[in-house]
Amino acid sequence: MDSSSNVVLSTQEYNVVGTRPIRHDGTDKVTGRAVYGGDFQTAGLLHGKVLRSPHAHARIKSIDISKALAHPGVRAVVTAKDLPYAPDKLADLGEGAANLKYLSNNVLAYDKVLYKGHAVAGVAAVSPHVAEEALSLIEVEYEVLPAVTNAPDGMKDDAPLLHDDLFTTFLGEKAEVPSNVANHIQYVVGDVEKGFQEADVIVEREYNMATVHQGYIEPTNATALWNADGKLTIWCSTQGAFVVRSVASEILRIPVSDIKVVPMEIGGGFGGKITIYVEPVAALLSRKTGRPVKLIMSRAEVFEGTGPTCGSYVRLKMGATKDGRITAAQAYMAYEAGAYPGAPIPQGTMCVFAPYNLENGRIDGYDVVVNKPKTSAYRAPGSPNAAFATETVIDEICEKIGMDPVEFRLRNASKEGTRRMDGPTYPRIGLVEVLEATKGHPHYSAPLGGPYRGRGIGTGFWGGIGLQSSCNISVNPDGTVTLVEGSTDIGGTRAAVAMQAAEVLGIAAEDVHPSVADTDSIGYTAVTGGSRTAFATGYAAYEAAQEVTQKMRERAATIWEASLDDVEYAEGVISHKSDPELRFTFKELAARLPGTGGLITATATVNPRGVGGAFATGIVDVEVDPDTGKVTILRYTVVQDAGKAVHPSYVEGQMQGGAVQGIGWALNEEYFFNDNAEMVNSSFLDYRMPTTLDLPMMDTVIVEVANPGHPYGVRGTGEVPIVPPLPAISNAIYRAIGVRLLSTPMSPGKVLEALWEKDEREKS
Amino acid sequence: MDSSSNVVLSTQEYNVVGTRPIRHDGTDKVTGRAVYGGDFQTAGLLHGKVLRSPHAHARIKSIDISKALAHPGVRAVVTAKDLPYAPDKLADLGEGAANLKYLSNNVLAYDKVLYKGHAVAGVAAVSPHVAEEALSLIEVEYEVLPAVTNAPDGMKDDAPLLHDDLFTTFLGEKAEVPSNVANHIQYVVGDVEKGFQEADVIVEREYNMATVHQGYIEPTNATALWNADGKLTIWCSTQGAFVVRSVASEILRIPVSDIKVVPMEIGGGFGGKITIYVEPVAALLSRKTGRPVKLIMSRAEVFEGTGPTCGSYVRLKMGATKDGRITAAQAYMAYEAGAYPGAPIPQGTMCVFAPYNLENGRIDGYDVVVNKPKTSAYRAPGSPNAAFATETVIDEICEKIGMDPVEFRLRNASKEGTRRMDGPTYPRIGLVEVLEATKGHPHYSAPLGGPYRGRGIGTGFWGGIGLQSSCNISVNPDGTVTLVEGSTDIGGTRAAVAMQAAEVLGIAAEDVHPSVADTDSIGYTAVTGGSRTAFATGYAAYEAAQEVTQKMRERAATIWEASLDDVEYAEGVISHKSDPELRFTFKELAARLPGTGGLITATATVNPRGVGGAFATGIVDVEVDPDTGKVTILRYTVVQDAGKAVHPSYVEGQMQGGAVQGIGWALNEEYFFNDNAEMVNSSFLDYRMPTTLDLPMMDTVIVEVANPGHPYGVRGTGEVPIVPPLPAISNAIYRAIGVRLLSTPMSPGKVLEALWEKDEREKS
Repeated sequence: MDSSSNVVLSTQEYNVVGTRPIRHDGTDKVTGRAVYGGDFQTAGLLHGKVLRSPHAHARIKSIDISKALAHPGVRAVVTAKDLPYAPDKLADLGEGAANLKYLSNNVLAYDKVLYKGHAVAGVAAVSPHVAEEALSLIEVEYEVLPAVTNAPDGMKDDAPLLHDDLFTTFLGEKAEVPSNVANHIQYVVGDVEKGFQEADVIVEREYNMATVHQGYIEPTNATALWNADGKLTIWCSTQGAFVVRSVASEILRIPVSDIKVVPMEIGGGFGGKITIYVEPVAALLSRKTGRPVKLIMSRAEVFEGTGPTCGSYVRLKMGATKDGRITAAQAYMAYEAGAYPGAPIPQGTMCVFAPYNLENGRIDGYDVVVNKPKTSAYRAPGSPNAAFATETVIDEICEKIGMDPVEFRLRNASKEGTRRMDGPTYPRIGLVEVLEATKGHPHYSAPLGGPYRGRGIGTGFWGGIGLQSSCNISVNPDGTVTLVEGSTDIGGTRAAVAMQAAEVLGIAAEDVHPSVADTDSIGYTAVTGGSRTAFATGYAAYEAAQEVTQKMRERAATIWEASLDDVEYAEGVISHKSDPELRFTFKELAARLPGTGGLITATATVNPRGVGGAFATGIVDVEVDPDTGKVTILRYTVVQDAGKAVHPSYVEGQMQGGAVQGIGWALNEEYFFNDNAEMVNSSFLDYRMPTTLDLPMMDTVIVEVANPGHPYGVRGTGEVPIVPPLPAISNAIYRAIGVRLLSTPMSPGKVLEALWEKDEREKS
Repeated sequence: MDSSSNVVLSTQEYNVVGTRPIRHDGTDKVTGRAVYGGDFQTAGLLHGKVLRSPHAHARIKSIDISKALAHPGVRAVVTAKDLPYAPDKLADLGEGAANLKYLSNNVLAYDKVLYKGHAVAGVAAVSPHVAEEALSLIEVEYEVLPAVTNAPDGMKDDAPLLHDDLFTTFLGEKAEVPSNVANHIQYVVGDVEKGFQEADVIVEREYNMATVHQGYIEPTNATALWNADGKLTIWCSTQGAFVVRSVASEILRIPVSDIKVVPMEIGGGFGGKITIYVEPVAALLSRKTGRPVKLIMSRAEVFEGTGPTCGSYVRLKMGATKDGRITAAQAYMAYEAGAYPGAPIPQGTMCVFAPYNLENGRIDGYDVVVNKPKTSAYRAPGSPNAAFATETVIDEICEKIGMDPVEFRLRNASKEGTRRMDGPTYPRIGLVEVLEATKGHPHYSAPLGGPYRGRGIGTGFWGGIGLQSSCNISVNPDGTVTLVEGSTDIGGTRAAVAMQAAEVLGIAAEDVHPSVADTDSIGYTAVTGGSRTAFATGYAAYEAAQEVTQKMRERAATIWEASLDDVEYAEGVISHKSDPELRFTFKELAARLPGTGGLITATATVNPRGVGGAFATGIVDVEVDPDTGKVTILRYTVVQDAGKAVHPSYVEGQMQGGAVQGIGWALNEEYFFNDNAEMVNSSFLDYRMPTTLDLPMMDTVIVEVANPGHPYGVRGTGEVPIVPPLPAISNAIYRAIGVRLLSTPMSPGKVLEALWEKDEREKS
């Protein structure tokens, strides 16, 4: 095992952390043995399907389920009326009412449908085919309403209102007139007008980004069994079993302890499998039938009925001096929430100027409901939409003042002690090191080797989250340990978490056997998301392993009849400080445990605060075909601060995967809506995600600037690499063909149109 | 909830311990939702069957599997040659070799078959029917050998030898000539000859008991998946997942950490589901096929291929003075081990005189191999065979000296400080209290009300075991907790364990949600057996709950900014000692946990020593039909020391169930062998177990003499009630018809024969 040549080392070397063992779940996954949500089988299983709205915005006048119920293969039909939520109960619910209403109505529409694909009814039948047939027997009468599908239109005074009880919150105050704007966030620092006056050059641009989907391979699914004793078990593919438990508890209004969520293996999530969709429908159908009910979405349902990320409108203005100092920055950010409030506008406003130390700035962010599926998280949610604007404006400034883009960023880079505009002051961060590594990378200065080629860079930030994680460790008599965690493993975290325990214990990664438990079998563990799992669940593993070392020392002291203070534990060896003959390896002492008081167990629950925060850059070379407008990625390098890469291969995998998703968003992906606000490309054939054939090898450089908030210096790594590709590609296209594309996707059509406009301009 | 009028209270009252909440797994079990081993389903499942020996004793000359393998539906065939054990490897294995050989050869016979039903080969096929068909295609050539099926015959010098490498161990020495006696245990106290000289009356009798089966409803089963990475998962119905893990590890010679055992719900075990049978066969078939393989035994296979309890020969002699003092006692006990060593002779010799304080005694116990299935544990293994002798000899002595049988037992009863013949000195035990309760019970003095009726009593002892148990507890924000344990729940231990945690926490039993985890997900936990689960796993729950109270106090101290010493926890309320306004109920503080540092988890592993030991008596009224010999149980009362009955209903259930099994053994059950040593009644039609129609309501009296070795005074309760019925019924039959039956079953035929003999004697 080597730590690989592409790691820029600045952290401590460890025995296990930083090596590349084979992942514990690898064989199961490559041999097809891993059991995903859709694989779940049990006796008496019924199959469910969901009826969805054909309209983007309509009032539900009536739903007649009688014909469906009369079908001999149908066992139950449910609608929103079967959910505990109802308008007349709202008063009892106090402050949580609005949120409960939104959660509940997104699961099954109550009085209005707010997007094409909005769930209206669920059917349980003896087979999926019968259930599907029965959907056509449900008669829904709609009153179709005008729809709005982007934030600027939604913010207009005469826009169709999605919710007549939604009022803009701004600075803690609620507006008096209903609006599609749920929330207006504002951050101001210094004097932005004065800053622009000091600028030698000012660039202001407008940006539009399309709605895109997380595009996970495994469709959303859930099986539920609502038992006769009131206990509900849910088997599903989720990023957070405890999240499903708590949200299901809210929507169904039963205690969390009456719900057990069993996380099956998950075929990708990227943020899109945090909230719940079919789980409550399956639960209600199970309650009505007394049998387990399984629901698996089709791909079209996944696109139309589950959370994509937000489309957005951003207007961004920056000023700088000739010598490359940013004097002022201002952003107006309107993010689409989809049908219910909750666009990632807190995250977008956090990220938009995060890489830069600003004296004067102003950010206004708007959370705008539109007639699209409710957005959910997608890898660094809100950050790409922000960075696409910031990083291309900066590129234009650099061009105007004739400064190297990395050099410009270095001059303005945030570092330890810089106060971010949304409040926090940075601890030790690695942006400068990432920029230095970018500048020094051969890719940055390699010849482009042809016409219509250009190189661009972009910087991205993600803050990461901490939250609670739990971990149990048990020592086996053969000197291995089992490790139980509550974090769904999407990207190799079983290995990353196990390795941190192995490091503490001084044993091999292979001697730690990790497994992911259900909500009844492990302490509370927050979502696998926010780049938190290797950080926080790894921290829990670290703490549980520390408890094991303590108990191993105690046991050795008992065996040797020695004082605990005389017994030390180092690198897997328990020894007496003054008697060199008294010495156990971990395996030796493990074998002695059963006969000396029993095997050892330990548990830890952590809620770590020192999340760190991660920066990445992307260097991209593109070639534009001037005849077709097609943009080819020739070369791509991700440079990223991982704090400490626990398993460099999986960190590299995250960097590569994130960059690829950013490239897809930049070049091809979009929800394509017709005039009736209906998505018309809801299949992987028409919704174009990049494949390996579209891409070169994605190069990675791991920079390690240890996070002081974690015992091994770990930072979250999953999300930030999606951010740089969007501006980097726009910047590269500009260098290749001289036009700046300010909206995504930068598809062949748009590139051609931009080229034609440029030709027109140059002709005129 | 009341503590029931039939509990003789001498222990403390608690809030939860001692009440009768509905068991947590009740709904699942009564609605058919509980998933047993046979219910297990997974993709790609193959089905296995086992070829078994038609001979009781034979040498295997050859096995030809070629025709079976050629069957188009067959996927693999395995024989003992596929197991790591082979004679030429024995030398490498050191001391464990013999044991490994026996374990391995019982799973698949290597060179000899030692009982009819002994497994010879396993087949995996596309369906159970194809697998069964393929069994007939396996050609085995046997050299049939003479068989021996009872201990006295097996001990003869000219007996056929089962193993030519088995030598009797006695006082640590091995004999030089091979024998069917594996082990001779001897205990001597005082001067037994002198004791008999002091006696006014001496009784000596010989006893033979038939082999009987545990008779669990759910047949033995296992599914195994040996994964491509070498990891083996076993789903099975077992009393001890960790036992399956360690025994499979030994037999298959892979590390315990490469094995995960998932305990499914279990449909009865009674000791018979501790060791393993089809698990390694399923594993080998899976390794050969790369697919999961399920094996479910038929009822005949369960009878012929899994461990029954031992048949036995006991010769017992006791002497007493006229005033009821035992002066000497001597037992010669030869227990059948079945095909491989391991009869419960240590337990039998422990129990035989355990209720009595003896000055002079001698016990010789012999572990004898015979051509029957290898015996395994069955509810207080070895104790009924012993007590049948002791308690009927005592009855005869009482008759001779004209003393009340309870009074006689009280005069000689073991109590705290009495040294048992096998070594230990009793801590506080409840025999005297049990005998007093027996004497005072209305049943003991009720009129019999008819001819051919008689009343008998018997006393039984079981020592119980401690061993390791683990428990994890997590607090939910709704004020409930989840509890994870490693103990298979056979008789309501989920409830009994959860209640002990609830008692510590001061919350309701229903607010503890227990679940049984697999071997990867909980710390080591020994078998559900030896009457240890409510005692030891309950102790672990107690300790884990104590850790929760400590952490709850710490959290309250943090919230209140108070010193930990000022915060107390009592009956579910966390309060400040000096400020009455600072007070949280458990639920209130639980709701505060997520926002104040996270939810709380705790783990405990215990290895308790203070097992206690339990005594029971049975009072039985029988009526004998002089024409048919049928014995009807008119009334039965169990009186038993439970220490503290955690859930009195389940303790009563154990007492009733144990007594019923003892009655079945006494009256009807037996392995019936033909002249070729072949069992000929291997079905529930021909092997007669008692049903509800055969029995009256079984009355119970719980005596509570707190066990000082457990925080709530709990003693094991599962096993001892099986002991008293055998002697009690023999004694009752004597009172009814004047003949003493000294062998089981005391079936109508034997009763008639005894009556005829008595008539002959009286005539002559």
